[in-house]
Amino acid sequence: MQVIKSHKCFDGNVVYCEHYSQATGTDMKLSYFLPDKKPKGAIIWLSGLTCTEENFITKAGAFESLCENDMMVVCPDTSPRGLDLKNEHESFDFGSGAGFYLTALTEGYKDSYRMDSYIMDEIHPWISSTFELTDRISISGHSMGGHGSLTIGLKNASSFTSISAFAPIVNPMLCPWGTKAFTGYLGSDPALWAEYDACSLVKTGHKHPKPILVDQGLADPFLKEQLKTENFEKACSSAGQKLHVKYRKDFDHSFFYISTFIAEHVQYHAKSLDA
Amino acid sequence: MQVIKSHKCFDGNVVYCEHYSQATGTDMKLSYFLPDKKPKGAIIWLSGLTCTEENFITKAGAFESLCENDMMVVCPDTSPRGLDLKNEHESFDFGSGAGFYLTALTEGYKDSYRMDSYIMDEIHPWISSTFELTDRISISGHSMGGHGSLTIGLKNASSFTSISAFAPIVNPMLCPWGTKAFTGYLGSDPALWAEYDACSLVKTGHKHPKPILVDQGLADPFLKEQLKTENFEKACSSAGQKLHVKYRKDFDHSFFYISTFIAEHVQYHAKSLDA
Repeated sequence: MQVIKSHKCFDGNVVYCEHYSQATGTDMKLSYFLPDKKPKGAIIWLSGLTCTEENFITKAGAFESLCENDMMVVCPDTSPRGLDLKNEHESFDFGSGAGFYLTALTEGYKDSYRMDSYIMDEIHPWISSTFELTDRISISGHSMGGHGSLTIGLKNASSFTSISAFAPIVNPMLCPWGTKAFTGYLGSDPALWAEYDACSLVKTGHKHPKPILVDQGLADPFLKEQLKTENFEKACSSAGQKLHVKYRKDFDHSFFYISTFIAEHVQYHAKSLDA
Repeated sequence: MQVIKSHKCFDGNVVYCEHYSQATGTDMKLSYFLPDKKPKGAIIWLSGLTCTEENFITKAGAFESLCENDMMVVCPDTSPRGLDLKNEHESFDFGSGAGFYLTALTEGYKDSYRMDSYIMDEIHPWISSTFELTDRISISGHSMGGHGSLTIGLKNASSFTSISAFAPIVNPMLCPWGTKAFTGYLGSDPALWAEYDACSLVKTGHKHPKPILVDQGLADPFLKEQLKTENFEKACSSAGQKLHVKYRKDFDHSFFYISTFIAEHVQYHAKSLDA
């Protein structure tokens, strides 16, 4: 893990790093914020479509609440980079910037598009050991990254103290972004998609012991067609998974929305460490 | 003034606008944040080299303090756009994204690069009338925008309740960024440069009745060669202009630095309205 640059920020530092990833077989970049005071926990933040390791750290305005709650945040990139696979750079919702936090099965993609493995086998243990935060890691994210947070969190419940998400794609098997990505990465058999669909995971018995916190703007233009928050509410209700959904009147899908409520999520994850 | 988009954000809205400018003869974009509660004052924020109307509004994390202090902020772009003048798009420190808040005299630039006129003759009166904030406008900015804040503020002292700046270019006549820009926009005679140099303005009698607040990171890589904060301290001291310089140990030139201290500046401008 090589430090590219570091910026003093509030009572801590923003750090940009680069490292070689076994999971993706490529160099990967990430950013993190580390408070001066030893953090009591870390949040892995998974970003959405088109994002890199930069978006959350520059736009979310989370530093003050991270310091107040003695928390660090780690922001991986959203896909492998530096490749030139077929169709990889042609659309915003597939390929680069759109890794969907899964292990691809299709030709071309299966060797490098393994973002769930990257998070669980490399980033998670790196945080645990480097910052001495074993069993003190939570996960959150936005949109495609909210999908990542829910699916990775539910499948690895014992590895995360708590799960939250902003405007997550909760049911990608049933929305255009998800079906396009899953077809491209996993092939056309929906049976292979279910393990990357938060609603399906809950329905098939995956649970987290803490309530999941989901945040959703009611003026989000993607709510009805892509995000389908209600489907997750129904699935959790049927399966007995505790869930808090905070609907936010007038808020949309942007970082202006995330920045308004990120402090609540930081507090939620910090409190979950003590509970 | 045409609204392009609007985002609910904290207890207010971020708005992006476009309008035709008489001063530049081009369409210009700007962003602003307007609290739901009627603001008691406005800050004009002038951004630095390479920036647009987007940088401050997406990266500074100022919304909470703006709401707490009942303040709005207006963020103009840093140059005219959509032109193709000689050398306009070849370097980051001259031409597009680098208007230097002056009225150009050189062929090609003199018709459109008039950012000081744009701010004073169009943006300032638009804020006064649209938001009923006559005599309740302050000015701030970063780097090249700090230079703009100091020079426009000092030359139009009665139009601004207070002036602040982050990492301003206080003495552009004596630094590489400034001499390059002034030569290109004003010609090679330094006598024509002095009215756009904050140190010169203070030395020649321009004053603001309130103390000027200047913020400067001590790990700023541009401090010695380009920013020269000390020169402004000396000039203000000699001329009897009150000045508060806040040096910040370990902080650099980035928006991570600005976001750490922007709340202090918002408070400063809000309090100046009442004093």
